[in-house]
Amino acid sequence: MPTYTDLTAHPAHQQLTKSALYPPDLRQGRLTPHRLQQYKTHTAGFDLLYATQRLDDNILVNLQQLADEAGIIDQFLAMKQGQVMNRINGYESENRQVLHTACRDIFSASPLAAEASAQAKNELRKLQNFLAELADGSLRNHKGETFTTMIQVGIGGSDLGPRALYHALAAYSLPDRKVHFIANVDPDDAAAVLQGIDLSRTLVNVVSKSGSTLETLTNEELVKTAFRQAGLEPAHHFIAVTGQGSPMDNPTAYLRSFYMYDYIGGRYSSTSMVGGVMLGFALGYDAFVDILRGAADMDTGAEQRDIRKNIPLLLALIGSWNHNYLNHETVAILPYSQGLIRFAAHLQQCDMESNGKEINRDGTALDYQSGPVIWGEPGTNGQHAFYQLIHQGTSTVPVEFIGFRSSQYGQDITIQETSSQDKLLANLLAQSLALATGQDNDNPNKRFPGNRPNSLLIANRLTPYTMGSLLALYEAKIVMQGFLWNINSFDQEGVQLGKKLATQFLDHMAAMAEGDYDGNGDELGWAMLQATGIREIEK
Amino acid sequence: MPTYTDLTAHPAHQQLTKSALYPPDLRQGRLTPHRLQQYKTHTAGFDLLYATQRLDDNILVNLQQLADEAGIIDQFLAMKQGQVMNRINGYESENRQVLHTACRDIFSASPLAAEASAQAKNELRKLQNFLAELADGSLRNHKGETFTTMIQVGIGGSDLGPRALYHALAAYSLPDRKVHFIANVDPDDAAAVLQGIDLSRTLVNVVSKSGSTLETLTNEELVKTAFRQAGLEPAHHFIAVTGQGSPMDNPTAYLRSFYMYDYIGGRYSSTSMVGGVMLGFALGYDAFVDILRGAADMDTGAEQRDIRKNIPLLLALIGSWNHNYLNHETVAILPYSQGLIRFAAHLQQCDMESNGKEINRDGTALDYQSGPVIWGEPGTNGQHAFYQLIHQGTSTVPVEFIGFRSSQYGQDITIQETSSQDKLLANLLAQSLALATGQDNDNPNKRFPGNRPNSLLIANRLTPYTMGSLLALYEAKIVMQGFLWNINSFDQEGVQLGKKLATQFLDHMAAMAEGDYDGNGDELGWAMLQATGIREIEK
Repeated sequence: MPTYTDLTAHPAHQQLTKSALYPPDLRQGRLTPHRLQQYKTHTAGFDLLYATQRLDDNILVNLQQLADEAGIIDQFLAMKQGQVMNRINGYESENRQVLHTACRDIFSASPLAAEASAQAKNELRKLQNFLAELADGSLRNHKGETFTTMIQVGIGGSDLGPRALYHALAAYSLPDRKVHFIANVDPDDAAAVLQGIDLSRTLVNVVSKSGSTLETLTNEELVKTAFRQAGLEPAHHFIAVTGQGSPMDNPTAYLRSFYMYDYIGGRYSSTSMVGGVMLGFALGYDAFVDILRGAADMDTGAEQRDIRKNIPLLLALIGSWNHNYLNHETVAILPYSQGLIRFAAHLQQCDMESNGKEINRDGTALDYQSGPVIWGEPGTNGQHAFYQLIHQGTSTVPVEFIGFRSSQYGQDITIQETSSQDKLLANLLAQSLALATGQDNDNPNKRFPGNRPNSLLIANRLTPYTMGSLLALYEAKIVMQGFLWNINSFDQEGVQLGKKLATQFLDHMAAMAEGDYDGNGDELGWAMLQATGIREIEK
Repeated sequence: MPTYTDLTAHPAHQQLTKSALYPPDLRQGRLTPHRLQQYKTHTAGFDLLYATQRLDDNILVNLQQLADEAGIIDQFLAMKQGQVMNRINGYESENRQVLHTACRDIFSASPLAAEASAQAKNELRKLQNFLAELADGSLRNHKGETFTTMIQVGIGGSDLGPRALYHALAAYSLPDRKVHFIANVDPDDAAAVLQGIDLSRTLVNVVSKSGSTLETLTNEELVKTAFRQAGLEPAHHFIAVTGQGSPMDNPTAYLRSFYMYDYIGGRYSSTSMVGGVMLGFALGYDAFVDILRGAADMDTGAEQRDIRKNIPLLLALIGSWNHNYLNHETVAILPYSQGLIRFAAHLQQCDMESNGKEINRDGTALDYQSGPVIWGEPGTNGQHAFYQLIHQGTSTVPVEFIGFRSSQYGQDITIQETSSQDKLLANLLAQSLALATGQDNDNPNKRFPGNRPNSLLIANRLTPYTMGSLLALYEAKIVMQGFLWNINSFDQEGVQLGKKLATQFLDHMAAMAEGDYDGNGDELGWAMLQATGIREIEK
């Protein structure tokens, strides 16, 4: 059983604090070809280049010590083996295992968490059968036509991860299969999606673990109404992905039901049926299994104790170096791949909901920073947008670049002897160098300060396998940072107060609809409705 | 002529620095109904509620003094009147006027910058004629069919702002009109868009002020090739929006040409022809004029010297209070409207490219923070994602909420006596209150620290008019912060080094394609190509 210690209590923390007073300089020739080759590692299809971080061999030794002292790998293994890690010692908490890795631990004869992996395999078999029925035509609509469209209704973890993966891999879609997403309770979200869809050939995949998520139930009802108005029976079109025994676990209301389990948090659930049903529909069963294979390989690579041979662990430690020691408050995720257009939004959830915490695992307030703000957009678009601040702003923003040697569609054009893909990659390399080395100039406006830390993840092509690997890479990085910061990365109590107050506002609105709300009992709520002009209340 | 002074040199700065030691507390009943009503103002269709900021009357007086001492409104007027504000004193710089406001100063008999407004009106007349030809059928494709689709090819300011506006207003599209965007040099971006479009009924709007933007020219060529492969003549489908005399200002190659002028920076160009041609095609001419009308009204409202009657000015000052005095490094823009899904990405560019600077207007290094990191996603999606960190993280993230009392489509559903729109608004109000007031609890994991500053912009509905007003609101906020920080918000020298290095990489790649690249002359570049596995080089 690993011991849980605060970041600041580790001996290596003192060393790193000292080193941070004079971090290595990357300018004026100090970034050498030798350093580029030396600060490079490989895991499950990805190379990580980190010569453009403000690191040296000494700091890397201290980071290795920190990883060992914090028992990061021991904790990662304990997680994979099913230890109850989602808890706060001495206080009421969710008290759950954390087993998203079990969803893809299906290729080995002896999975680390056998029961969870068996449950995952069972759901996979159900999915395989369902997809086969769609493919061989035994499952069709009432007119005998095939289903061509899926709408995924979910929010948060039931939306962002699956959506990011769908966009990333849409290039490999089966012919005549298309997916849309409805997440926001804003009725305009659903209205925009429902416009111009042939509902009779559409499956609706409703995803909610609890079966009681307000936004999802509201949108499910809104979409059901559209089906009924079109003369269609929702139970012949709707699929449920939910927890066993939830209010949605009701076979009469759904064409098929798939299960998710409470040992998988929403934001880590893309490789469960939460992503699987939709991705299987869009890409086919084999492609979904390839995603799982990539994730499984990265999960295995992440067990390496040598930080220089383990990308997730090294990225986690470099992140802490930049955040806790060099005091940079945010991290930009900048993928040079249009397919990854929603990947930063997924990581925003996965990282910030996991590690945006202010107490440790004993309920004591932290005396150091936990999770950073995560943001980003695909390059080269970003270059024409916010890169100005990253190069010349008064804040330093550490960057994690992601790139691929080949494009997905392979539809390219050569202009001036280089392809578009070459131009994309040339920009990626140029930005990494420019941020690190900077440039002097007599004109202060043309001066680039340099020393802006960044790293570069690169793989051959964005495929189901590499997407699975990349997803698992960041999931592992995030939980490893949580272990290092000694926080519970698996709950989300911070969303509860807003929910509670929203329910109060809705109670007021409902009471007003019945004509019996007088503004008493919640002066501030009444004043908000009045001041915003959302409801005029006569007192 | 206003004088340009550093933020830290103003007398009000000292007062604010003192006040920041003990900022007002919003918890435990201190946020009152009276305060909600008092800290509220209105400009051009929007209410701003700012009772949930850590402000009091005293600090507001100091912020008013700061605005007056910095001459923010004088500088804003000087900008609108055509003063050369895009410059660094004593150094080579762009030396241009800054006249995006002139694009919409077309409703008054005496515009502040008469020549620029006359040029804008001239382009508007050309646009009106072009749209009328499309509507009355005098302009059709070679088969006599109408045009139904437009692809906008542009990047940065020629993409993000127009795209954000299109998404925001797509609910009001003309029947059978649809717009797609290609920005990224990643060939997969264009490939994904070109899939499944009927090119014969498509217009391509190529937008580049210089007529030489690498990404845009590459994508233009890629799309032209697709047209030629489909047996279509690009000159019968392509439209140019470019600077007069640019390489793209060539009537034989384009069906129509519209002009943009160098006194309008890319990121401020959405209300010029850069956005106008596409928005006019999608929404009709009158709707585009409504956007301009909303922007013009906000531009006029922004001239108010009383900070409590001027939303952009007040937001600019509150932003500085949170950033320079309370030391919060980022700002989250959280719109409770699915239509605004890309608005934060536009502001990321407009704000961070404008104000991510480290020297003042005399070329001296700043000794205070300039522009913050801007990020955000629509609520309620964000609530299920990164709000955990905003509520309980170790960093404080100031939030700017945006909401609308009614939805766009009006397609709603009532469940438990409240509509989806009610639920959306209830969540919006709940989040604003929860962040400000926080909540105590015996369980430290259920504690909410509160005092997390936020403000709330609200209007009746997201329409062309309110979208124009909202756009101009943020444009004004951004330039006013630039005036306060004494920086040039109108150039972007920080993007140049990356461009230069990218060209070097492309030269290497082109030379290798010809077989004569030996890796000499740029050791680091060679090593990057080698280390990333993008090119294997035999030495």
